[in-house]
Amino acid sequence: MLEITPDIRRLIDLALTEDQVYNDVTTNLLIPPDAQGVAVFRAKASGVLAGMGLALEVFKHIDSTVQTQALMEDGRAIKAGDLLGRATGRVGVLLRGERTALNFAQRLSGIATETAKYVAAVKGCKAQIVDTRKTAPGYRYLDKYAVRAGGGRNHRMHLADGVLIKDNHIEILRKRGVGLPKLLATALSKAPHTLKVEVEVTSMVEVEEALKAGAHIIMLDNMSLEEMAGAVKAINGRALVEASGGVTLETVRRVAETGVDIISVGAITHSAKALDISLDIEG
Amino acid sequence: MLEITPDIRRLIDLALTEDQVYNDVTTNLLIPPDAQGVAVFRAKASGVLAGMGLALEVFKHIDSTVQTQALMEDGRAIKAGDLLGRATGRVGVLLRGERTALNFAQRLSGIATETAKYVAAVKGCKAQIVDTRKTAPGYRYLDKYAVRAGGGRNHRMHLADGVLIKDNHIEILRKRGVGLPKLLATALSKAPHTLKVEVEVTSMVEVEEALKAGAHIIMLDNMSLEEMAGAVKAINGRALVEASGGVTLETVRRVAETGVDIISVGAITHSAKALDISLDIEG
Amino acid sequence: MLEITPDIRRLIDLALTEDQVYNDVTTNLLIPPDAQGVAVFRAKASGVLAGMGLALEVFKHIDSTVQTQALMEDGRAIKAGDLLGRATGRVGVLLRGERTALNFAQRLSGIATETAKYVAAVKGCKAQIVDTRKTAPGYRYLDKYAVRAGGGRNHRMHLADGVLIKDNHIEILRKRGVGLPKLLATALSKAPHTLKVEVEVTSMVEVEEALKAGAHIIMLDNMSLEEMAGAVKAINGRALVEASGGVTLETVRRVAETGVDIISVGAITHSAKALDISLDIEG
Amino acid sequence: MLEITPDIRRLIDLALTEDQVYNDVTTNLLIPPDAQGVAVFRAKASGVLAGMGLALEVFKHIDSTVQTQALMEDGRAIKAGDLLGRATGRVGVLLRGERTALNFAQRLSGIATETAKYVAAVKGCKAQIVDTRKTAPGYRYLDKYAVRAGGGRNHRMHLADGVLIKDNHIEILRKRGVGLPKLLATALSKAPHTLKVEVEVTSMVEVEEALKAGAHIIMLDNMSLEEMAGAVKAINGRALVEASGGVTLETVRRVAETGVDIISVGAITHSAKALDISLDIEG
Amino acid sequence: MLEITPDIRRLIDLALTEDQVYNDVTTNLLIPPDAQGVAVFRAKASGVLAGMGLALEVFKHIDSTVQTQALMEDGRAIKAGDLLGRATGRVGVLLRGERTALNFAQRLSGIATETAKYVAAVKGCKAQIVDTRKTAPGYRYLDKYAVRAGGGRNHRMHLADGVLIKDNHIEILRKRGVGLPKLLATALSKAPHTLKVEVEVTSMVEVEEALKAGAHIIMLDNMSLEEMAGAVKAINGRALVEASGGVTLETVRRVAETGVDIISVGAITHSAKALDISLDIEG
Amino acid sequence: MLEITPDIRRLIDLALTEDQVYNDVTTNLLIPPDAQGVAVFRAKASGVLAGMGLALEVFKHIDSTVQTQALMEDGRAIKAGDLLGRATGRVGVLLRGERTALNFAQRLSGIATETAKYVAAVKGCKAQIVDTRKTAPGYRYLDKYAVRAGGGRNHRMHLADGVLIKDNHIEILRKRGVGLPKLLATALSKAPHTLKVEVEVTSMVEVEEALKAGAHIIMLDNMSLEEMAGAVKAINGRALVEASGGVTLETVRRVAETGVDIISVGAITHSAKALDISLDIEG
Repeated sequence: MLEITPDIRRLIDLALTEDQVYNDVTTNLLIPPDAQGVAVFRAKASGVLAGMGLALEVFKHIDSTVQTQALMEDGRAIKAGDLLGRATGRVGVLLRGERTALNFAQRLSGIATETAKYVAAVKGCKAQIVDTRKTAPGYRYLDKYAVRAGGGRNHRMHLADGVLIKDNHIEILRKRGVGLPKLLATALSKAPHTLKVEVEVTSMVEVEEALKAGAHIIMLDNMSLEEMAGAVKAINGRALVEASGGVTLETVRRVAETGVDIISVGAITHSAKALDISLDIEG
Repeated sequence: MLEITPDIRRLIDLALTEDQVYNDVTTNLLIPPDAQGVAVFRAKASGVLAGMGLALEVFKHIDSTVQTQALMEDGRAIKAGDLLGRATGRVGVLLRGERTALNFAQRLSGIATETAKYVAAVKGCKAQIVDTRKTAPGYRYLDKYAVRAGGGRNHRMHLADGVLIKDNHIEILRKRGVGLPKLLATALSKAPHTLKVEVEVTSMVEVEEALKAGAHIIMLDNMSLEEMAGAVKAINGRALVEASGGVTLETVRRVAETGVDIISVGAITHSAKALDISLDIEG
Repeated sequence: MLEITPDIRRLIDLALTEDQVYNDVTTNLLIPPDAQGVAVFRAKASGVLAGMGLALEVFKHIDSTVQTQALMEDGRAIKAGDLLGRATGRVGVLLRGERTALNFAQRLSGIATETAKYVAAVKGCKAQIVDTRKTAPGYRYLDKYAVRAGGGRNHRMHLADGVLIKDNHIEILRKRGVGLPKLLATALSKAPHTLKVEVEVTSMVEVEEALKAGAHIIMLDNMSLEEMAGAVKAINGRALVEASGGVTLETVRRVAETGVDIISVGAITHSAKALDISLDIEG
Repeated sequence: MLEITPDIRRLIDLALTEDQVYNDVTTNLLIPPDAQGVAVFRAKASGVLAGMGLALEVFKHIDSTVQTQALMEDGRAIKAGDLLGRATGRVGVLLRGERTALNFAQRLSGIATETAKYVAAVKGCKAQIVDTRKTAPGYRYLDKYAVRAGGGRNHRMHLADGVLIKDNHIEILRKRGVGLPKLLATALSKAPHTLKVEVEVTSMVEVEEALKAGAHIIMLDNMSLEEMAGAVKAINGRALVEASGGVTLETVRRVAETGVDIISVGAITHSAKALDISLDIEG
Repeated sequence: MLEITPDIRRLIDLALTEDQVYNDVTTNLLIPPDAQGVAVFRAKASGVLAGMGLALEVFKHIDSTVQTQALMEDGRAIKAGDLLGRATGRVGVLLRGERTALNFAQRLSGIATETAKYVAAVKGCKAQIVDTRKTAPGYRYLDKYAVRAGGGRNHRMHLADGVLIKDNHIEILRKRGVGLPKLLATALSKAPHTLKVEVEVTSMVEVEEALKAGAHIIMLDNMSLEEMAGAVKAINGRALVEASGGVTLETVRRVAETGVDIISVGAITHSAKALDISLDIEG
Repeated sequence: MLEITPDIRRLIDLALTEDQVYNDVTTNLLIPPDAQGVAVFRAKASGVLAGMGLALEVFKHIDSTVQTQALMEDGRAIKAGDLLGRATGRVGVLLRGERTALNFAQRLSGIATETAKYVAAVKGCKAQIVDTRKTAPGYRYLDKYAVRAGGGRNHRMHLADGVLIKDNHIEILRKRGVGLPKLLATALSKAPHTLKVEVEVTSMVEVEEALKAGAHIIMLDNMSLEEMAGAVKAINGRALVEASGGVTLETVRRVAETGVDIISVGAITHSAKALDISLDIEG
């Protein structure tokens, strides 16, 4: 369930301000201020719905007397023609909020739809599709919500909910004379006690170092399918294994079949196409 | 040139808050707080650059003592391996801001790159590629900037800088007994005197009504190529002609060849893929 | 109709903070916190009402349980003694909000009243009275709303909804070797396609240059009545004509009689006197 | 000295947002983004200067690299032609900020100028001209600063820095069976110990009650000159005496000559005319 | 009565953001999103209640549909086991808000409880216990409210509601050749007319200077009991006397018995222990 | 190192607004606006320093031209008389910021000092002192920073960085027919893969259930010393053991000696006394 957080309200505020909804010259010119109307969201393509509650909230944000109702739940597969949600109130308000509401619903549904394709592609494998932090700045909570709506799971929400030692960390410390084993030892002994430690590796040598140090999760970065399969075998359940880097809808099944536990995919958030949804307004 | 507006600062704030950059447990664990470093943005694919200044600003937003330098200008064609920008300062700050900076640069460069493809496709035609208001909420100014970086032009920035009478307006007023001719007459006589009036039409009958009323711009909505060519001929320079609706990279050239003045494309902002850019941090 | 936008809420917030309404020592000392009361706005002078909804909103902003009702509509002519609006709720809340509510209502009604005088003065002429961007910073939307309430029309809401080439632009470009004709040609070919181009001129030579270039609107800046009449004649309907600069209630009729289409008056927003309104609170 | 407080920054933010300074289509069209320039404020009428530092701050708020310099100090008498302040930087920034900067300077200087007229009118009398809380909401700090620049003094800054028992308080308590003597006794015994207690009176009977109770300040509300003189005589230095209500430039001297200590004038803030100031920009 | 001011809402926002209430992984994992529940605040120690309304507001801030009810009024003496307040709504919301709500209630009740001890200790003396400005930054209004709930009175709310000349002011002016008498004369003649003037003194010589100048309030800073008694005698009602500095629960009675009017105690706000309160949630 | 985050700036803003630093009547009355001065923080008691950088930032927040320098590092043991930090600039600014700066430094140093006592008390034991989420709302980042300065470690920063199943969760699910074993199984299989799962237990039966399910961390809630020792023995390294609830400085050593890994103490943040620090200002 998508909670409308204070930061989402701030984002809606930014959106309504940038669209100058209160200076909508066309609506001001043509529409009687008190005329009432109904707006209905309608799918124009197949996919997975996400963000209907958010889209409806946009209208309430402009005018708290607008009444709204989701007609489909987020996470549901939808097809062209499906009615998704309804807002009732001053028709001028519906016209002003139309574009912002649609932009939210189309983006989130696009992410959910793309995620669902990856999830379907690995069906039957144990591997889980997770997202990354490659979300539109300001949209972390929303984009990750859409991933869940599409059947994916979330990797770290932010920099605070998991220790993840990446290439840049390793390189910086290597230059300072701290190798991977020592670095991992430090991380494991000093990390907040509620967090696991994940480390990005690029070779079997590093896999062994990570295992020996006791890393909880090992991220295989841009490895070939063969390397991944080898790593999974070597790790043999002693740590969770995450595949990362350049995974596409074409390759994801084969990656899953290497036996990794987790596959993180940046494209589901940073490169998903908007799902086509329209708004019919009657007044 | 991208100005860092107060609202962009608010968006950066939201982004840094949602990523919990000040609770970056990995960096806090491993990196000495005063260690200095350099971060360099590097293209990993071909495209058009946009948002480098914004990406660099992210670091300054975290710590105003960071020094930054763009190595390529927005709007330039880039290829894999090109160095795009550099930030120098506390390496912990560079690590904290990495993801947010990249997310901005990849999104904006993705939009610029997609736009450039459409612009190239209509080369030699008089038609101009313009964007729509189908931008990520909160990103209007940024997404439209990226469109310009890609060689496109901007349609309305928001609801205040142009009268645009669309299907929903027309339908609402029709139900109230106001037909297109009367509606246009009202709009033309009462609109703010610095704004033109554009109207969306779906048939030749409406084209004629719009011309007769004196509309400044006529938007042909989802017409076939033949209909568009016919409309252009009928209008014959008496109004600007905009083609809109479902234009793709495959069809855009043929649309341009109908003789329209303007082609608006939603996909360049709502469905562009992120351009791959990485950040190398040395410390 | 005045929409209570997020930015108006911010302005109300600033106002209630600066007035320390929650540390109202007098009310805290003397008034029982739960005592109920009624506040009634009453005109103490003749004029045009504007901002009653905003004034009433102030009380709801302090305490959302306050009930409010406008007794007169904005835009109505009022006279001393007229009852304008009513708020019912905790009397301490009514006392705390009194000054801020009155300050809003008096300012906006003052602007509406002053505007109405100019509108009356040109009655029968085709010229329309419009405002300028000379509003109190933070009050653009409110001051321009009051102008409409007084029967005036709005010029540009801001820098984005019209191209307006003024003396400073012209002078800067002249120094760079760009004369008025070339400057206008550039503006007309590159301006966003939904916007008209207006140019400020000070002589008949410039009027001719502007016409030749195809300017949509010509602003006659501080011209004498004779010059204005001459310009109107020369332009002869080929562009809209706006008179601007130093227009007063004494001169506005004669300006209108020169045949200009639009007369912009800064004084209606920057120098209007507050309209006297009081608040009677019973508890 | 005018401090640029966080709330003033918020007001500047509102102003720059409402004026869409970052979407200034005219400047974007015509002015090279890196062109440098100088802007000089010039008086176009006589009066008292206030707000020059604030006006200059507007440019720095848009772009922190702008250099500014006040050429005259706030509080100084100025005449047409005087150069008041200068800003140097990107000329596009100067053009974008022009209107907001002028609107601030003209409003504040208008208030200072009006105040100075009242101060001059009572020269030689002991009475001091003070303002009221009748300021534009959001402008309390600024408007009261301008009053000081004009030689006036400030009454309460807000509801927290003085107990002021007004007609509405008295009426509400009277209905509840609490007369003026008891009400004053309560206020005097329970008020925060650093605050004086002022009470509004409308008759000699109330003057006597206020004196007897020990009120520190007695506000004579809308009394005739004779009544005021009588009250001053009766009070005879036992409390400060404030005249309030409907004082104009025509009547203020006679009010002062009644011997009151303080004369509060709402018109200096709510009805001052803007002082004419222009900005010459060269680039 | 505690008003929920805009700034308190900002503080609640900061609190909910820092606690990441919308990313509560435990609740998200385990609790059905629509499950309803009831939360009851229960005292686990004896003391004075303060902040129950604020604690309950936290839940409404997360989700406006939560229903709340205070079961005890602020200012009441409570003992372990007492039921203090109740919130009903989605149980996930109750769990998310639990810690923030308790943190507010425990802090404010801790302050009220500590204050009540000081008030009890001086029972029968005329001296009143007042707070200082030594509150947690951001908590001025809340901490001072809690002091009132505990039976204390408030000293200055902030720097605007009383002239208080302290050691640092005196020292700075002494270095500039301005002694206490002259400094006081200036302050008394130029201070806003609604404010009294208080001065901090450290010796009988300064007491005499302050009296002679006409100071309204004299603050005895860190004087011994004997010195205080001597000062009270010398002042003899000609000014209010405030004792300040290092007063503890052990010494406060003896300080009161010196005859001072006011005793200000920093410890009641800056060093009060939290009062133990728990929240029982059933769902 | 304490980073000045955007949210800390918001808290400083709230603090400066509530203290009305720009309406400091005393400073405005007495201190020349351009007078320069130096302020030096001085310890008046022994303890551990924390928040000096934050205290100094307060002055820069009021006026960015103030120069500051920490003279002691946070985390250092200090004694009465030690000089801790210095700010140089307009003396009026130093006076305005004094109280807010001191309030921050005293609170944070108080927390660091209290923490250090607990850390010292368990010296030689393996147990680590950690804080809780019982911080002043809005102060999470600051209070936890102070705990680290005092030698403690941090438990969860917020609800997102660890799964912590507490009494209320267990009770709610028990009522819905979900016992501890099933609840733990769900949490362990569905929790974000970078987070450990901690569970609160109150009996040996629950300890066994937690162990069997595979909980990573077991929190012993309000157990007796004997029970804790027994639990440690039974767990025998198969999970981390945290002691929680009612730990005091008197009991902490004995708790540590039971062999637990972690001892969480709410009192170090919610009930620490302010450390006495003063500010000497010379101008």
